[in-house]
Amino acid sequence: MGNSSGAEGSGEQRAAVRRVTVVGAGLIGTSVALALRSRDVDVTLSDPDPASLRLACDLGAGRPLEESADPSSAPADVAVIAAPPAAIPSVLRASQDRGLAHVYTDVASVKASVLAEAERLGCDMATFVPGHPMGGREKQGPGAARADLFLGRSWALCPTGKADPQAIAAITEIARLCGADPLVLDAGVHDRAVALVSHAPHVASSAVAARLVSGDDAALTLAGQGVRDVTRVAGGDPAMWSEILTHNAAPVAEVLHEVAADLAATADALRALAAGGSAEEVLAPVADLLERGRSGHGRIPGKHGTVQRPDYTVIPVVIPDEPGSLGRLFAAAAEAGVNIEDVRIEHTPGLPLGVAQLYVLPAAVDTLARALSADGWSVHPGA
Amino acid sequence: MGNSSGAEGSGEQRAAVRRVTVVGAGLIGTSVALALRSRDVDVTLSDPDPASLRLACDLGAGRPLEESADPSSAPADVAVIAAPPAAIPSVLRASQDRGLAHVYTDVASVKASVLAEAERLGCDMATFVPGHPMGGREKQGPGAARADLFLGRSWALCPTGKADPQAIAAITEIARLCGADPLVLDAGVHDRAVALVSHAPHVASSAVAARLVSGDDAALTLAGQGVRDVTRVAGGDPAMWSEILTHNAAPVAEVLHEVAADLAATADALRALAAGGSAEEVLAPVADLLERGRSGHGRIPGKHGTVQRPDYTVIPVVIPDEPGSLGRLFAAAAEAGVNIEDVRIEHTPGLPLGVAQLYVLPAAVDTLARALSADGWSVHPGA
Repeated sequence: MGNSSGAEGSGEQRAAVRRVTVVGAGLIGTSVALALRSRDVDVTLSDPDPASLRLACDLGAGRPLEESADPSSAPADVAVIAAPPAAIPSVLRASQDRGLAHVYTDVASVKASVLAEAERLGCDMATFVPGHPMGGREKQGPGAARADLFLGRSWALCPTGKADPQAIAAITEIARLCGADPLVLDAGVHDRAVALVSHAPHVASSAVAARLVSGDDAALTLAGQGVRDVTRVAGGDPAMWSEILTHNAAPVAEVLHEVAADLAATADALRALAAGGSAEEVLAPVADLLERGRSGHGRIPGKHGTVQRPDYTVIPVVIPDEPGSLGRLFAAAAEAGVNIEDVRIEHTPGLPLGVAQLYVLPAAVDTLARALSADGWSVHPGA
Repeated sequence: MGNSSGAEGSGEQRAAVRRVTVVGAGLIGTSVALALRSRDVDVTLSDPDPASLRLACDLGAGRPLEESADPSSAPADVAVIAAPPAAIPSVLRASQDRGLAHVYTDVASVKASVLAEAERLGCDMATFVPGHPMGGREKQGPGAARADLFLGRSWALCPTGKADPQAIAAITEIARLCGADPLVLDAGVHDRAVALVSHAPHVASSAVAARLVSGDDAALTLAGQGVRDVTRVAGGDPAMWSEILTHNAAPVAEVLHEVAADLAATADALRALAAGGSAEEVLAPVADLLERGRSGHGRIPGKHGTVQRPDYTVIPVVIPDEPGSLGRLFAAAAEAGVNIEDVRIEHTPGLPLGVAQLYVLPAAVDTLARALSADGWSVHPGA
């Protein structure tokens, strides 16, 4: 129970975080819980939805918080409130009132409005250190959670001047235990930053995706990887994103206004060209935008931050589109002693065949390719 | 040399494509060449840049075309002109004049302007079948080429009424040999489609990325996967994209104008909120855009390629991280008579458990959940 793992015992002057309660077993809360469990932290979970809570616990994210526990039972070291922005201040206040933990943090992607409302509700700001881990997915719920969701990512901390240094140290340790890089910054600076690198890009993605509603089927059939990437985040939950944008309205509006102006200028230039204008005269704003776009793209830090994820190799295998084919494929892989780390299935409409993209560790590629080929599969390593 | 592989000898009535010349050893040309080589097609390559040509050949994409060959030497079955749009008509004309091949195609992402210029230059339109494989990367050059770049993608063919049926059959076979799904459509329809699903999204990506130029370092440090995806294509070559946009100006302008209008309306609504407006009154356009964005995103063909994809239900199943677990799971599904339409595996390195997200038809959910539960699996429908 009180045993610390090897990593915790390394002698750095770090806050001891041994018992954590995660309030909210959605994607982020469950991912935090999984990451902490992988570092031997004792984690209890709560969620108003029993199905989510059960799945999170079955995944090994922790055990259910005893909601009716003796109020004199020992508080956790940290409570992580993984609720939507609008709910955080009241959940925080209630958690502090019942003495759930010594220190509190949240994971919302907006900070200034959450802080202001928490102050208004009379929360104890000495023990609250707002946080924002920069990991997310377009999928929701505990089933999409991953212990490595924050690996190598930044984790913003936005303590007010009232926060205890010990509280800041504890939440810094939470970020580190999840494999993230803690970064302390002002809530207003944070909110303008995420408007630029997250919220406005999300809206732009939605605006591109919204055009597809009226596209004909042939157009959609021509969709390639580019538009899939540009519009991936547009698949996110509209209600959740409405709430986020509402809580960061002014900074997001500022960025969106500039994006809209650039696009309108580009549209005007292309129209002038189509109407017979000379390319030299009208296309300067187009070329300028493309150049600025490449420069801005180049400023994004390296793909996975500082921490390297394992580099999987992809092996395409042609599969018949019929019940049992994937089972036979995975059985053949298991017989070869190779673990499939991930799989993507590409299927072509009207064709009886698909492609399973098998993700394996590089050391396993040759073994698997040989075994599958010997078993009669159409294997394309290196393709 | 003339030996056809097993797949080619399957007896379907397909055009015989055994010798291909690829003119232009960039990303697309080299990828086509690699894909053809993997199907035992004899490929010769040419490129005005000797380094690109050498690299492509070293990668196994083919052997250099003998530029000074005896003009009476046998023409290739097909010449694939993988040059920028502005260069294609003149390269086509020169290639036809020297009798390089029996049939010609190109790979440019714009078609109407290329066709018009080819006609103007007096090219033989009976042997020219314009093409556009829907594969690409933000990287350029033969070093970024992949034999599987077109695997499972659409490959648009835009023959004019003058094209020989045999020529269309030969280019259809080129697409199939590259693992793509050939799709014949009108050049104007094609150009409007790619404006919607490729060219306008590219410009929008650039406009989002352009905002990052003026972001401070802290903001960039907070960049997560979302903005990376939205701006990935903005890393593409500005000169190449300027040329593409120039050749498809009117359709792209139309889409961009609408995207800009949606973004401006969203910015206005968020500003009104920040200025004290009530959320109920000002946020309708924001919620509407997010909803339309999700709808549009949902229209992009899934891994199964169908435009109107059936609504699959996702069943999360907890799986141990060990060889054979997926095989056992799929075997259990097959035994229940249920076809798994798609699968995603959520797995965290270092944790003993993962989640298989099984995509099945809604009618199969109960059957599968009961069968898997009875077989001892931790099944979580509805989570």
